[in-house]
Amino acid sequence: MIIKKTAAIGGGVIGGAWAARFVLNGLDCKIFDPHPEAERIVGEVMANATRAFDSLTDAPKPEPGKLTFVPSIEEAVEAADLIQESVPERLELKQKVHMQIDAAASEDALIGSSTSGLLPTDIQAKMMAPERMFVAHPYNPVYLLPLVEIVGGARSDPAALDHAHAAYEQIGMKPVRIRKEIDAFVGDRLLEAVWREALWLIRDDICTVEELDDIMTHSFGLRWAQMGLFQTYRIAGGEAGMRHFIEQFGPTMSLPWTKLMDVPDLDDALIDKIAGQSDEQAGDLGIRDLERIRDDNIVGFLHVLRDARNGRGWSAGKALKSYEERLKAMAANDV
Amino acid sequence: MIIKKTAAIGGGVIGGAWAARFVLNGLDCKIFDPHPEAERIVGEVMANATRAFDSLTDAPKPEPGKLTFVPSIEEAVEAADLIQESVPERLELKQKVHMQIDAAASEDALIGSSTSGLLPTDIQAKMMAPERMFVAHPYNPVYLLPLVEIVGGARSDPAALDHAHAAYEQIGMKPVRIRKEIDAFVGDRLLEAVWREALWLIRDDICTVEELDDIMTHSFGLRWAQMGLFQTYRIAGGEAGMRHFIEQFGPTMSLPWTKLMDVPDLDDALIDKIAGQSDEQAGDLGIRDLERIRDDNIVGFLHVLRDARNGRGWSAGKALKSYEERLKAMAANDV
Repeated sequence: MIIKKTAAIGGGVIGGAWAARFVLNGLDCKIFDPHPEAERIVGEVMANATRAFDSLTDAPKPEPGKLTFVPSIEEAVEAADLIQESVPERLELKQKVHMQIDAAASEDALIGSSTSGLLPTDIQAKMMAPERMFVAHPYNPVYLLPLVEIVGGARSDPAALDHAHAAYEQIGMKPVRIRKEIDAFVGDRLLEAVWREALWLIRDDICTVEELDDIMTHSFGLRWAQMGLFQTYRIAGGEAGMRHFIEQFGPTMSLPWTKLMDVPDLDDALIDKIAGQSDEQAGDLGIRDLERIRDDNIVGFLHVLRDARNGRGWSAGKALKSYEERLKAMAANDV
Repeated sequence: MIIKKTAAIGGGVIGGAWAARFVLNGLDCKIFDPHPEAERIVGEVMANATRAFDSLTDAPKPEPGKLTFVPSIEEAVEAADLIQESVPERLELKQKVHMQIDAAASEDALIGSSTSGLLPTDIQAKMMAPERMFVAHPYNPVYLLPLVEIVGGARSDPAALDHAHAAYEQIGMKPVRIRKEIDAFVGDRLLEAVWREALWLIRDDICTVEELDDIMTHSFGLRWAQMGLFQTYRIAGGEAGMRHFIEQFGPTMSLPWTKLMDVPDLDDALIDKIAGQSDEQAGDLGIRDLERIRDDNIVGFLHVLRDARNGRGWSAGKALKSYEERLKAMAANDV
């Protein structure tokens, strides 16, 4: 099943970036967002995405698809093969939106929710045809980071998950199927753990926001852009490997090293502290500056990973390689 | 204070890599390790480090220093300006080793411990001259990753911490001073939080070791190699910035998204599962292969970051730029 027409329901930072990924991959996209400034916001995301996509690959790029703002969910989804919902994270709202999508979408449309934590079983609960609905959770910036976590609900059809897998690959992504439905899936559970610990460290003045970021970017950040937690620790275990690592470091797990039993109060004092330190860290760089710096760096990393191992590629670079091969094949078919 | 002579007490993966960093930066290093295979292990680390250092920079490199294995702590430290202790993580052992260092080291030597969790106040408790002792906690691979967390104990002299800061910068590192002594400092607290959450996800079969790693390397790993948690979330907050982000996402903090109240039992079943899945993930790549792939990728990322923003550098790339300027200045002075 080849995706040709797409719909984006919700056009914030995430929905707008989905629309950009669709359009830059030659797919028409109808987008619905009731926000009065939706067109401006999506326009800005699209500009950044176009800039990044230009530098991402020299493979032949398809003619961009057409982006159309429409005034209702029904008009957005009626002819779409792939529908991506990215509305705010409130279950009642998601359920209502998915009922509207459900009523207007074609029978074999794929319906993905960008939720970063709600369960697909709950979101699909009130749908007539829930078997085509699943979670497809992306990471910001959606137009560059390849990961999409695919999570099925109790009533999702495994065949729809297979189709979704292929559809997201078609637009250059790396789908990873989560084996069991669980709040926050995998990536956000890990992020949540780090976020909680970080809040304690700032609250207790162990370090500032900028020092904590420096610590991440100058150490394990450089590891995790190319090898995850387990592969990294496999190496740390040396010749004896993973088992040795766990046996050596396992015992420290019982020390009271984290404060994660509790969550710090997000009171005004802590919010002020973090916001103030964050302003200092950013200096005179605005959000758009930071976004472009981030995007350029990620593109650079993806090129390093694509060219790794004498061009065989590594990690996210392999996803980029496959994507380029697909683009080339498509261009050859067009001729 | 310019460091000329160094000592490495302990020559495992960490101690050996310190020795490599010292020697490749033109500093003589005397190393002590009672392990019967210490010379072989250090030799292998040195080979990897030399390979990586060659490709790290085109700046003029100093003539490598001399590495000497010596049969006692006393002989290693007696003439050293900078002494790096990297023995196993047992407080009694660290205390004993630091008493030996204390008795034999010159008065103004700097004494850093590589401990990843023990408190400097405890390690220095039995020293006669503890003011020159502090924690200098590096990250593997020590010869490439720039971060070193500097932590003073109750009896550390602030002037010694300043000297240490300059000494680690001299060998191309990014020292970050931790403001208060705390178990596991900052980086390892964050890593511990991720590790615990990851163990739950594997134990409960939400994903495999390889899937979890893929999720990290295809999403936030690419973010954290260049912007930390807070800078990334500042962008996620959009034009309204950090305060908006916290207000928007703060509430999810109270959901029971993590299981971090408990630590899973590291029983044989869980160790077997992780070790088995890790073997599958590695395929036919041995530890040395993985190390070289990792090192090449990190060097590539550091080059991307050095050249970022039209050559002004970004994040760990700035540390590399300063280092290259220092190497050039040293070469100019030599002429």
